Amino acid sequence: MSNTQFDRRDFIKTALAGSAAVSLASLAIPAMARQEAHSSALHYGPMPGIAKLDANENPYGPSKAALSAIMKASQQGGAYYAYETGLRLIDMIAERYSLKPENVTLSSGSSGVLTSAALYASQTGKILGPDLFWDTTALAPHNQGKADILRLPKTNDLAIDLDAFYEAITDEVSMVQVTNPNNPTGRALDPVQLEKFCIKASKKCLVLVDEAYNELTDMPEKHSMIHLINKGHNIAVGRTFSKIYGLAGMRVGYLLSSADNIEKISKFGMGGYAMNQAGLAAAIASFDDNAFLTFSKEKIEQGREMVMSAVKANGLSALPSTTSFVFVNLGDVNADKFRAEMKAQNVMIRGVYRDYLSWSRVSMGKIEDVQKYVNALPRALDTLRNT
Amino acid sequence: MSNTQFDRRDFIKTALAGSAAVSLASLAIPAMARQEAHSSALHYGPMPGIAKLDANENPYGPSKAALSAIMKASQQGGAYYAYETGLRLIDMIAERYSLKPENVTLSSGSSGVLTSAALYASQTGKILGPDLFWDTTALAPHNQGKADILRLPKTNDLAIDLDAFYEAITDEVSMVQVTNPNNPTGRALDPVQLEKFCIKASKKCLVLVDEAYNELTDMPEKHSMIHLINKGHNIAVGRTFSKIYGLAGMRVGYLLSSADNIEKISKFGMGGYAMNQAGLAAAIASFDDNAFLTFSKEKIEQGREMVMSAVKANGLSALPSTTSFVFVNLGDVNADKFRAEMKAQNVMIRGVYRDYLSWSRVSMGKIEDVQKYVNALPRALDTLRNT
Repeated sequence: MSNTQFDRRDFIKTALAGSAAVSLASLAIPAMARQEAHSSALHYGPMPGIAKLDANENPYGPSKAALSAIMKASQQGGAYYAYETGLRLIDMIAERYSLKPENVTLSSGSSGVLTSAALYASQTGKILGPDLFWDTTALAPHNQGKADILRLPKTNDLAIDLDAFYEAITDEVSMVQVTNPNNPTGRALDPVQLEKFCIKASKKCLVLVDEAYNELTDMPEKHSMIHLINKGHNIAVGRTFSKIYGLAGMRVGYLLSSADNIEKISKFGMGGYAMNQAGLAAAIASFDDNAFLTFSKEKIEQGREMVMSAVKANGLSALPSTTSFVFVNLGDVNADKFRAEMKAQNVMIRGVYRDYLSWSRVSMGKIEDVQKYVNALPRALDTLRNT
Repeated sequence: MSNTQFDRRDFIKTALAGSAAVSLASLAIPAMARQEAHSSALHYGPMPGIAKLDANENPYGPSKAALSAIMKASQQGGAYYAYETGLRLIDMIAERYSLKPENVTLSSGSSGVLTSAALYASQTGKILGPDLFWDTTALAPHNQGKADILRLPKTNDLAIDLDAFYEAITDEVSMVQVTNPNNPTGRALDPVQLEKFCIKASKKCLVLVDEAYNELTDMPEKHSMIHLINKGHNIAVGRTFSKIYGLAGMRVGYLLSSADNIEKISKFGMGGYAMNQAGLAAAIASFDDNAFLTFSKEKIEQGREMVMSAVKANGLSALPSTTSFVFVNLGDVNADKFRAEMKAQNVMIRGVYRDYLSWSRVSMGKIEDVQKYVNALPRALDTLRNT
């Protein structure tokens, strides 16, 4: 593999994974990289030999059931708009959470519905978030000429201070956004404290909880705020099939909220128009596929333990994680430089987030790819510490 | 099939196919219809026995090559974000039209990019369109609280008066939109006249040409305005894989314009974020699949001839069409009532558009389904004329 090839992949993934500095609009790729893409083989997934641990994907997906459903749906329905398939998924989701279909809307990955919520909220005020969270969608209004995100001050332990969060909800704030568990930190908030915050905060403005990694926590139901919707609180919850379900490439996510919120927020998105038969069929087939979900969760936990051991063995520390990624504190090593050294060993991870210069995110992948990370880690650190 | 089942399908398709009164946001489905969807079998395509001629889909798709690509892409890449696959398609599209990749952006069907263009344009003015065109995406700004579409007066022959169109571009207009060939009329503008209009009009504002049906015309290149982009005119052209390519359910469309316009318009959409591996792979496999495209075009032409003959045999007339649909003048018969009578015979077509009460759009489908339309037509007319 040429370095240029690698650089292009790297560029794309940087744009992808949502650092604060990167907007959806900046996903445009330089001409040179594009030309190269055209002349090389099409792999869909990562190139052979590459440990792709940079986008919180689950490489064990799609499940067998999902692949069968994709084929059937594409054969029978590839030529037809997918509204009815979307209705089916909406019904399944509503039933799972004791909601009504009117409480559910879909998009191509949850980025669509989260962006719609951001655009809706930006009509009447600003979006408030922690210092570090998956802010790509919350930046959409700013990219379209509206106000930037308001952010909490950073904390020493990269946790979110919910009291300070609540106090920061001024009259100019129309939505607060929480990613829980958070990305890139991997931290989950205390569910009792988060629930109290959501109830209080939702009296002041819309509360958007991005639960992309909920299914990976120890107790998903306990960590979810979905139950607050039926209790009438002004809350919206985003979920995705891109993470534990192993369907990032199939683009299915959803938002749950009051029927009134869903109706208003949907005006800022494409609704059923954007949904594809293959993705919907895969999501329907995966939603209750507990054997696959259990298998995936075990692999992710196994990978996390390997990373945590390696981090410790190399004299580093990391935040506790209940997600498919680990946020590693590199101490005096710069995360961008570390990334480059890992890349030189065919291991793709993330670089610096905002001004967190020594923090490095690594996603769990196939166990053999996590092993490559473990193997590459000491050499990368050695190189950086000796230069 | 129960009538309720049919009603639900009908409702969905009404919402789909873009009458002026229907917005993207109105795609929400009534609770009763949703419950029914959940309890019935999942078909992806139309229910057996139904002639689905209401959404300009090409039921001969996806091609074999597309289905193979869908399977490979989903297996290898279903778990991974699809940026690189998107780059490949962008490269192919750019090369086809002698443009640069920076002149191309993708979305889940062309509705995404057309909506982005509408939202972009609505920042600085109003959208001007003919009285009748596929206005679903141009209505997005209005649905979000901005100005409604400005429309030309209707003409007796449902043609677009390009001189009047040009004169109507006042200072408050930031974009004019032309669907060519037009939907639902099926009419194509004279390409020489349209080119002159585009050049002149684009000096006043952005000109958006929706060429969703271009590939179905007698001379696609002659009818396209894409060549004006490289000449520096302020023009954007939308294209889709939903029509002749038979991939409506796979959601791939694109917009072509100057790099500057693409960058600005892309801020109002999800870009590569919304694209799915299966759809991209299908589009890549179909783009140069001339055997399939020729086959599809022949079937569509065969269907049009059958419809035109039946229309004439039943004492009606229709507009000439170079698309996958025919706009039939029912004379003194109401199009909604006609639709209901056809539905009673398991033939799904469109009802009234705006105040064109006697005009009825029928899409070409499989030849056996077009035959069902031909067979059902006299009975439906008889019933309506005798009541």
